[in-house]
Amino acid sequence: MTIKTKTKPSTSSPIEHLLALATDDMAQVDAIILERMQSPVGMIPDLAEHLVGAGGKRLRPLLTIASAHLCGYQGEHHYKLAAAVEFIHSATLLHDDVVDRSAKRRGKKAANLIWGNAPSILVGDFLFARAFNLMVETGSLVALGILSAASSVIAEGEVQQLAGLRDVEMTKEVYMQVIGAKTAALFAAAAEVSPVLAGSGSQKQAALKAYGQELGLAFQLVDDALDYGGFEAALGKSVGDDFREGKMTLPVIIAYANAKRKSDKPALGFWQRVISDHKQSSGDLETATDLLKQENALEATLGAARIHIKTAKLSLGIFPDSQWKTALIRLADFVAERVS
Amino acid sequence: MTIKTKTKPSTSSPIEHLLALATDDMAQVDAIILERMQSPVGMIPDLAEHLVGAGGKRLRPLLTIASAHLCGYQGEHHYKLAAAVEFIHSATLLHDDVVDRSAKRRGKKAANLIWGNAPSILVGDFLFARAFNLMVETGSLVALGILSAASSVIAEGEVQQLAGLRDVEMTKEVYMQVIGAKTAALFAAAAEVSPVLAGSGSQKQAALKAYGQELGLAFQLVDDALDYGGFEAALGKSVGDDFREGKMTLPVIIAYANAKRKSDKPALGFWQRVISDHKQSSGDLETATDLLKQENALEATLGAARIHIKTAKLSLGIFPDSQWKTALIRLADFVAERVS
Repeated sequence: MTIKTKTKPSTSSPIEHLLALATDDMAQVDAIILERMQSPVGMIPDLAEHLVGAGGKRLRPLLTIASAHLCGYQGEHHYKLAAAVEFIHSATLLHDDVVDRSAKRRGKKAANLIWGNAPSILVGDFLFARAFNLMVETGSLVALGILSAASSVIAEGEVQQLAGLRDVEMTKEVYMQVIGAKTAALFAAAAEVSPVLAGSGSQKQAALKAYGQELGLAFQLVDDALDYGGFEAALGKSVGDDFREGKMTLPVIIAYANAKRKSDKPALGFWQRVISDHKQSSGDLETATDLLKQENALEATLGAARIHIKTAKLSLGIFPDSQWKTALIRLADFVAERVS
Repeated sequence: MTIKTKTKPSTSSPIEHLLALATDDMAQVDAIILERMQSPVGMIPDLAEHLVGAGGKRLRPLLTIASAHLCGYQGEHHYKLAAAVEFIHSATLLHDDVVDRSAKRRGKKAANLIWGNAPSILVGDFLFARAFNLMVETGSLVALGILSAASSVIAEGEVQQLAGLRDVEMTKEVYMQVIGAKTAALFAAAAEVSPVLAGSGSQKQAALKAYGQELGLAFQLVDDALDYGGFEAALGKSVGDDFREGKMTLPVIIAYANAKRKSDKPALGFWQRVISDHKQSSGDLETATDLLKQENALEATLGAARIHIKTAKLSLGIFPDSQWKTALIRLADFVAERVS
């Protein structure tokens, strides 16, 4: 299987459609992001600019903006909440890159390799605190509760992932818990805060939360497939990072389960050596990728992602048709097919 | 100069007086701390228990509790805010120990040396998020604003300190800015949130904020003196940590300024070598301590602390006499004379 990449999506791509709709809103969000990452302590804006300014897809704040429009929200607090969501995400990226000893992020050298671990940790803390400053300014305690709960769930997911590192016996259930916490919780919160602002009621709130959660699961599943099958330029980070860290992701869980079922001793031995014993040498990433292809493990992972995308779209059923609903449906398609 | 230590303060010591008054309240705070550091992800309570369970003086939550009583607060939200304050403090300790590569904390091996850097970073994030969960539950947006603003100021102070590491030319002004942010901001916020809960008005709020800020400055000044003149058992962390990191603190700033004034070339060369060039060998800590004593730099630092203690006490002037006012005044004395 080959995962195709498009580095420059055409203007008719699903994400472009949403971005075009949300251009003005995202300009406001970016202005807040830029303003609130400033500090008289120069190292903070330097490092934050390196990461936040590098762009990225801004998927999570887009979710907040699109959900706000879907709910007919007329105020201005969604800009601040969207910026807060991006700050929380940026803080976790900075900390993750220290934890994972990453080399690349958003197509650039990871901040920890330029400034060192200490500034990455502390600027992450700064951005996290600034996220809460922004939320407080919106005056919505419910939104604050949703985003602060998501923040502790994210940290729990990260720790659980760390505890499961190099555990070749990790089950799919534990893996789904981990990605539900470390990734999907913030997608869910980003979508859920908007109906709260708009006062849309608990049904719409639950629907958008479910949409975000399912979208986040799909996003991480695709990400984990791309780590073996994608291209660095498309991923914006190094290919094979998960493998080198001995991180169990669904492709490996599937391949390892198949090897067990077939009592394929060479394959079992390979996975145990590279994951559990964490003894890797050159050529091992290629062998791993070959084994995953042989077992259709990347296809199966993308298939799982597609199911979550389907559920995400179904969650939007209670909303009447609108251009924003269409945009969110297309965004889901983009995540499923995402390669840029 | 010798800094005397008492490892077991007598029951009449200033802190004991306050602790006795606040016993029941602190039991409630501890129960919340214990409950909210739980997680199904076992590594989280293990690591949190190692740090939070090790005790420490709980000075910051004590400030919140005592201030609440001083303001006649009758509710229960001060317990949660006090626990939140301790969680923010614990999160910064966990991150600091990674940043500083500390060996000891609260008389025990630092968490980063037992579990590694990654869990310390992530459990810090978890505790920080849990702090915000607790604050949200109190429903006080003003208290949330105060504590989230303090959190970003703390991170700014930590980054500024990092940027000034090994800068032998750091001025007293910059140093005071750093400790005002990294330490005093949380003391100030811990004291300020209570009059907010109690609805005591802006004057009392400003007074308690000033009390906390001055107390925090004094606390850090004493800490920085103890790093050269104290004993490990009293400090709960390794003596000479600041020196080994090349961290500029007031004692060294004073000694270096004196050496400049007197054109004392050997002393100037010494400080430049151990701080700016960060070339240290055995015996250098002893030489540094000797130079500081020669210049009365530890005495001068403690003298500066005493001035802030005096200002802290004066800030309480607008409150009528009460046992809690007396307790806060004695707490200030304890910080000035703190050796346990």
